[in-house]
Amino acid sequence: MSQDLLPPRDRSGYPHFLRIPTRWMDNDIYGHVNNVVYYSYFDTVINSYLIAEGGLDIHAGTVIGITPETHCNFHDSFSFPEVVEAGLAVGHLGSRSVKYLVGLFKEGAPAPAATGWFVHVFVERASMRPVQSLPEPLRGALAALKIAG
Amino acid sequence: MSQDLLPPRDRSGYPHFLRIPTRWMDNDIYGHVNNVVYYSYFDTVINSYLIAEGGLDIHAGTVIGITPETHCNFHDSFSFPEVVEAGLAVGHLGSRSVKYLVGLFKEGAPAPAATGWFVHVFVERASMRPVQSLPEPLRGALAALKIAG
Amino acid sequence: MSQDLLPPRDRSGYPHFLRIPTRWMDNDIYGHVNNVVYYSYFDTVINSYLIAEGGLDIHAGTVIGITPETHCNFHDSFSFPEVVEAGLAVGHLGSRSVKYLVGLFKEGAPAPAATGWFVHVFVERASMRPVQSLPEPLRGALAALKIAG
Amino acid sequence: MSQDLLPPRDRSGYPHFLRIPTRWMDNDIYGHVNNVVYYSYFDTVINSYLIAEGGLDIHAGTVIGITPETHCNFHDSFSFPEVVEAGLAVGHLGSRSVKYLVGLFKEGAPAPAATGWFVHVFVERASMRPVQSLPEPLRGALAALKIAG
Repeated sequence: MSQDLLPPRDRSGYPHFLRIPTRWMDNDIYGHVNNVVYYSYFDTVINSYLIAEGGLDIHAGTVIGITPETHCNFHDSFSFPEVVEAGLAVGHLGSRSVKYLVGLFKEGAPAPAATGWFVHVFVERASMRPVQSLPEPLRGALAALKIAG
Repeated sequence: MSQDLLPPRDRSGYPHFLRIPTRWMDNDIYGHVNNVVYYSYFDTVINSYLIAEGGLDIHAGTVIGITPETHCNFHDSFSFPEVVEAGLAVGHLGSRSVKYLVGLFKEGAPAPAATGWFVHVFVERASMRPVQSLPEPLRGALAALKIAG
Repeated sequence: MSQDLLPPRDRSGYPHFLRIPTRWMDNDIYGHVNNVVYYSYFDTVINSYLIAEGGLDIHAGTVIGITPETHCNFHDSFSFPEVVEAGLAVGHLGSRSVKYLVGLFKEGAPAPAATGWFVHVFVERASMRPVQSLPEPLRGALAALKIAG
Repeated sequence: MSQDLLPPRDRSGYPHFLRIPTRWMDNDIYGHVNNVVYYSYFDTVINSYLIAEGGLDIHAGTVIGITPETHCNFHDSFSFPEVVEAGLAVGHLGSRSVKYLVGLFKEGAPAPAATGWFVHVFVERASMRPVQSLPEPLRGALAALKIAG
């Protein structure tokens, strides 16, 4: 069932990509990007897409996404000044929620250095209650990233 | 089986606690602590404990912990200037790895605002290869947090 | 003249203190707290004080502080898991702006590991235009930290 | 005198540029990039240049840069998902230290949204004592960014 889809293990599984350069302070004391920062890459590829393609207005929009669950598996390390190529897919699209699948790749690498998921439930900003249904063009933008289960 | 233990849903399930004050920049544009930052609280309660109780020397020690998997479920939100009370338990202790269970509580609240897990595999710093076995006092410190499965 | 007051070089110069524990990810690849993070400590001691003592409402208040200038001199390093003792004073208090002086101390140390300043101009949140005058209790809270020039 | 050179107020004053995309979590509760994060952009443009052009090896090199002073003036705000165009110049080049001048520009804008400086003193990694002189190719890379005083 599609809710249990795991993140694809190769690039071709991700319909959308964003390049995210690492920053100096992403590195931790062991010389690699800290595990926490991977989730910032997740956040960034997802919200960049929603703003550019889904009409999300983070400043004044009435609908915002809140996050009940995130997960990451780390297969390899990044280190500043590497560039992260963040792949994004949708594994499950509900009436008011979405489960994103994310793969983080080293430049040109076929297999991901990290894979994970990230769930958004869309709520009314004022009441923080779930929306009745996803507004367009948000639904359309998410449907365009849906992969088969 | 103990590897599949879920994080306890009440305070009494966590043998160790650390108070972590939020910071101004933990808040995101929606006025709550960003989901990414919760993992920084995980990192902090775990490594503080390992340094204080397990003899971990992050500057010069020959053994370091690397992170193959992390996970978080968000039940409620934090907002600066709240203090996070981070509970720590060990759900599975292997010969060279450990699965921590973490619960983040609002001050005095009985139920956690977030729960998650975090896996460490301990490796030789120079070779990045897994250690043969966990050195003391690290093993003892971890065993002291082990909860029943 | 008071606008040019430099941050005090000893503890007795700071009327207010906040303890800020470091976090694992504050450390950079060289094993010390990254220079960027010091400004997060500035932000945190200032806004914690404004919220607790000055009635600042960062979620719904009509007045917010914006930042035209910050500065830091680094005299010594911090390293996780140290606790930072952040001292706060007011060097200049104008009709709609304030220049904070900040000293960051190691636990119990007489001389600061870092000193700096941070300027706030208070504006109407909606228009982003400077306020006519500082509302009480904000002015009173700032005046209480004013040191002689 | 060149040590007191201020950061140029137009693009043509900066010999080197780096594009730095903002991230979701750069935004603070007021909807703009937090003042702290600007220093992370400073750090990133500087160290990216030193690694690419100056032979800086942050993992194993014997010479590292430590930071005694940083400063920023904020003229305008950034907001995710904007891209920051970070301009870099050298205002003063000593025998073992350098004062960088940084300008952060909105895409295509002629005037900077922020300007600041950042000082590096180069030290031996092992002893943390200042180097006798800057090694090549580091000195050459820095001299290439030197602007007239």
